[in-house]
Amino acid sequence: MFITFEGPEGSGKTSQIRLLTAFLREQGYAVLATREPGGTRIGDQIRACLHDVANTEMTAVAEMLLYSASRAQLVREIVQPALAVGTVVLCDRFADSTIAYQGYGRNLPLADLHQITQFATGGLKPHLTVLLDIDVERGLARRTANAEEMNRLDLETVSFHQRVRAGYHQLAAADPARWMIVDADRQAELVQADLREIIGARIKQKV
Amino acid sequence: MFITFEGPEGSGKTSQIRLLTAFLREQGYAVLATREPGGTRIGDQIRACLHDVANTEMTAVAEMLLYSASRAQLVREIVQPALAVGTVVLCDRFADSTIAYQGYGRNLPLADLHQITQFATGGLKPHLTVLLDIDVERGLARRTANAEEMNRLDLETVSFHQRVRAGYHQLAAADPARWMIVDADRQAELVQADLREIIGARIKQKV
Repeated sequence: MFITFEGPEGSGKTSQIRLLTAFLREQGYAVLATREPGGTRIGDQIRACLHDVANTEMTAVAEMLLYSASRAQLVREIVQPALAVGTVVLCDRFADSTIAYQGYGRNLPLADLHQITQFATGGLKPHLTVLLDIDVERGLARRTANAEEMNRLDLETVSFHQRVRAGYHQLAAADPARWMIVDADRQAELVQADLREIIGARIKQKV
Repeated sequence: MFITFEGPEGSGKTSQIRLLTAFLREQGYAVLATREPGGTRIGDQIRACLHDVANTEMTAVAEMLLYSASRAQLVREIVQPALAVGTVVLCDRFADSTIAYQGYGRNLPLADLHQITQFATGGLKPHLTVLLDIDVERGLARRTANAEEMNRLDLETVSFHQRVRAGYHQLAAADPARWMIVDADRQAELVQADLREIIGARIKQKV
């Protein structure tokens, strides 16, 4: 089962995935947690380029293709082999981030992004996608307070991040069977309790 | 005018472009010489990842998207602005390399490569493309003798490079008005003399 986590900056994806991974392993599942961009040796080289705050001149098209390259490597090197042996794969961001950030955020044509994503992923789609939803300014404030690594996207405007969040809501509304929206503007323990309940039930149903 | 140079490894593209740039400048033209992958600060970061001989696990799809990302940055940051002010742009490899190497060489679907290339280049096409043609084994031997930097593609088999060369010939046959095939298995001075004559005439005609 392939589960992806999406959301604006500061929505707490990384720490929620860490907690959920530990919980699911205690339940006896084989779990692999990974992230985008990165998750592979080559993907981490691409991540360094994408996140470098000195790379302010990066064009939207180059950015989109770099995320897709990292995704192509992750799918074939890590995700597909893990799914093939029945491992639950949790991924911090996936293809929906491209639609939200480069599509809704940067206004690149959605049809192109879908086509290139299909090429990059080989058609792999998540069984379940969790949107950790939070008001943009609340999320950015959290992020600034806690950020281990500020990156190039932290330099974007609030209105950019608002377009991204609105994009996520459009994606979720268009495919409600795949998406689950969780209010992330609560104590981490409450968010985690919701994730354990819903994801635990979905995995049991699937296995 | 936008002129690209293609060819198998060891065909002498780099030194021929250097000589041609000097010649055209002496003729009074504004000339910009650049290369792929690279040609920009961000492109050079991508080039390092593509050429690193340690990156043997790179998938064909990720490789193709990385070349495209470098190309997208080069087109928008360097090539289009230079063409807009009437500069002659000479580029060491461009989109045809993707069709030859990742298409014919690695057997990725040509339709996908064309679509992604259109997205990466914004539709920019060379006015003239020079194929510096040389027998694969002769070229590889030259390359091994002279290589300043061996790269990941030097690890490929002879039959891979033969598919690439055959791909170039198919591309040239399909669009003879754009392509010019030059026998590169001769003394550098003779190759350069041909380039000066033909390209000099084409630029004069165009300006």
